[in-house]
Amino acid sequence: MAKSIYLDYAAAALPNPSSIHEQGIEVKSHLEGSRKNVADILGARVSEIFFTSGGTESNNLAIQGVVFTSHEKANKKDKLPHIVTTNIEHPSVLETCKLLQNRKLAEVTIIDVEPNGIVDPRKIKKAIKPNTVLVSVMYANNEIGTVQPIKEIAKEIRHYKKTRAQSLGPSAYPVFHTDAVQAVNYLDLNVEKLGVDLLTLSGSKIVGSGRVGVLYKRSTVKISNIFGGGDQEGGLRPGTENLAEILKFSGALSKLENLKERESKRLVMLRDYFLVKLEKMSRFDLDIGMIINGDLENSLPNIINITFPKIPSDLLVIELSAWGIMASSKSACKSLSGAGSYVIQTLRPDADPEIGGVRFSMGHDTKKENIDYVIKSLIHILTKLKKWYV
Amino acid sequence: MAKSIYLDYAAAALPNPSSIHEQGIEVKSHLEGSRKNVADILGARVSEIFFTSGGTESNNLAIQGVVFTSHEKANKKDKLPHIVTTNIEHPSVLETCKLLQNRKLAEVTIIDVEPNGIVDPRKIKKAIKPNTVLVSVMYANNEIGTVQPIKEIAKEIRHYKKTRAQSLGPSAYPVFHTDAVQAVNYLDLNVEKLGVDLLTLSGSKIVGSGRVGVLYKRSTVKISNIFGGGDQEGGLRPGTENLAEILKFSGALSKLENLKERESKRLVMLRDYFLVKLEKMSRFDLDIGMIINGDLENSLPNIINITFPKIPSDLLVIELSAWGIMASSKSACKSLSGAGSYVIQTLRPDADPEIGGVRFSMGHDTKKENIDYVIKSLIHILTKLKKWYV
Repeated sequence: MAKSIYLDYAAAALPNPSSIHEQGIEVKSHLEGSRKNVADILGARVSEIFFTSGGTESNNLAIQGVVFTSHEKANKKDKLPHIVTTNIEHPSVLETCKLLQNRKLAEVTIIDVEPNGIVDPRKIKKAIKPNTVLVSVMYANNEIGTVQPIKEIAKEIRHYKKTRAQSLGPSAYPVFHTDAVQAVNYLDLNVEKLGVDLLTLSGSKIVGSGRVGVLYKRSTVKISNIFGGGDQEGGLRPGTENLAEILKFSGALSKLENLKERESKRLVMLRDYFLVKLEKMSRFDLDIGMIINGDLENSLPNIINITFPKIPSDLLVIELSAWGIMASSKSACKSLSGAGSYVIQTLRPDADPEIGGVRFSMGHDTKKENIDYVIKSLIHILTKLKKWYV
Repeated sequence: MAKSIYLDYAAAALPNPSSIHEQGIEVKSHLEGSRKNVADILGARVSEIFFTSGGTESNNLAIQGVVFTSHEKANKKDKLPHIVTTNIEHPSVLETCKLLQNRKLAEVTIIDVEPNGIVDPRKIKKAIKPNTVLVSVMYANNEIGTVQPIKEIAKEIRHYKKTRAQSLGPSAYPVFHTDAVQAVNYLDLNVEKLGVDLLTLSGSKIVGSGRVGVLYKRSTVKISNIFGGGDQEGGLRPGTENLAEILKFSGALSKLENLKERESKRLVMLRDYFLVKLEKMSRFDLDIGMIINGDLENSLPNIINITFPKIPSDLLVIELSAWGIMASSKSACKSLSGAGSYVIQTLRPDADPEIGGVRFSMGHDTKKENIDYVIKSLIHILTKLKKWYV
């Protein structure tokens, strides 16, 4: 059949995976191939993978989805559903919890991480109550790179459920969600090993990927849709799937899996090289001192977050930019808020918020000579700033 | 500054418009250029244009956004916010209204359109009550192509507000929203001329566009965000903007504006040619008759929706597909629901839902010879099906 006439422009300018004609079916098979690939990488089932517009949407769908479902199951006299999370989550988790709290749809407990940026699993466990429906703890932090003890938290939740079953009876809650957006490039994503029920991924942090989000949802966990609309993604996420971006995401994720181990090792070496140079520069050459934010023992290999005492980090980022170096002083998602980084403030609540920390986050094309150039530039910049601030 | 070192991989694998470094600022200026272009085409202000992931999200943001804001303003004894809409809206409007109703967040009145697929503005006006916060009526229907009297409905709403102000005092409500996703290729999008407060667009129906949605929001109208997260899009739509897709959308929309008039005229002629051929075929050659669904006087130039009595439309779509012709029998967004088209059922409630209607939606590359081939194929297909069904 050489001839093909497309008279379905009202469905979409390009063939739509939900259309029942031949081209629709072909597109659908590509979509499902990508879903199978993502499922395999996560150690999940095909029916447990849902495509969204990005990490923000996946986190919202996980959190709001659990809360809405618990409302549907609740009796009038039941307490509000309760969420446990930490104070260094990404805004798309933290602000969503606050949104639900403000709308009187949920009660939220925010656990402070320790001064090294790691949450204590026992504090999570202690916060769980009979009305707790969700625990949401990020896999790795976006600002300081700390990797959270996800497996230990999962174990505490399982233990709570077992103990609870003996007294109050078995419950599907609390559900355990992790935001793995920053972890994707370097850490193991197997949902069984991690022990999570919901997991968020985003294409935006993966080189060569399309701009889509993924939500893994364990088949036994029920969550409700946020959007009303069509039947796509099992009705959980209405709206025509963005096939071109999904294909790119799936391809980039596969490529990543093959490179992950080698690239992690390379970046750990590069990070350590960077740190030695930074230490030498700040302590001996400039004598201004330096604080490493986070916990190098439990950290992503690509993120270094440092504070030079008395030097405002926003200013440092702008000075670095003039040298052609793109770094950051807080989550770009919160760059318009006047306040400094809430993550850094959490680690050192008594410090001046203006000082904050500078994040260097490396990637596939970062090389040793780039680090040398950054150090050279920093010496110039800090020699100038030291006169004004220190 | 030849040298450029990107050390912001944790923000995004590509520069992020919210970053404060030089590359972030450059990306931001492209984003704002696109926003300005879209605003100009809609006759709106730059600050009134918000980018989302698609039409489904824009419709949800408009409807849920108005309802959440009205809840924030409400006293405990106030009635639930009330929405007026029609029974042929896209699922992303209709199902969102039902979702809010099921969650006891809103009361919904659904107005039946007339048998020609056009809503009577007086019926909309009659449904408006003191607690009505939103009227949502689509600009043009996706299945039968009927164009709704948006200006007349806007006039009725303004008149209601004026009358209301004399008795109950002035109110910002009801807000008027239109889903212009199907209208974008052929109709005038000027929000002032239309008299709307909220307008939805989607890139998915525009050839050459990126996959993004737009929500126009009049500056005087307040709506709440659905997602919790970062500060992007004025906080109304958190999540890193999909710049590559937004640029493509903006470019395609400009191109469209230049071609709109000429392309509309071309398609009206092609549509009329198609209809004459269909009439001849069904009435004289095959003697099975034919019903045109919708109202050709008030219709998009590219959509023809027809019913051949007793011939199931799903079957016809599959037979056409075997001839290489991609048509449709209902909204692709509802293709997985077993039921027939709810739009066709609305126009002829007594007819067998299995019969439905077949939609041919033409586009920029549809030519006269394609129509001739469709007619030739239909004669073969219907000659066979006539023996079985008629």
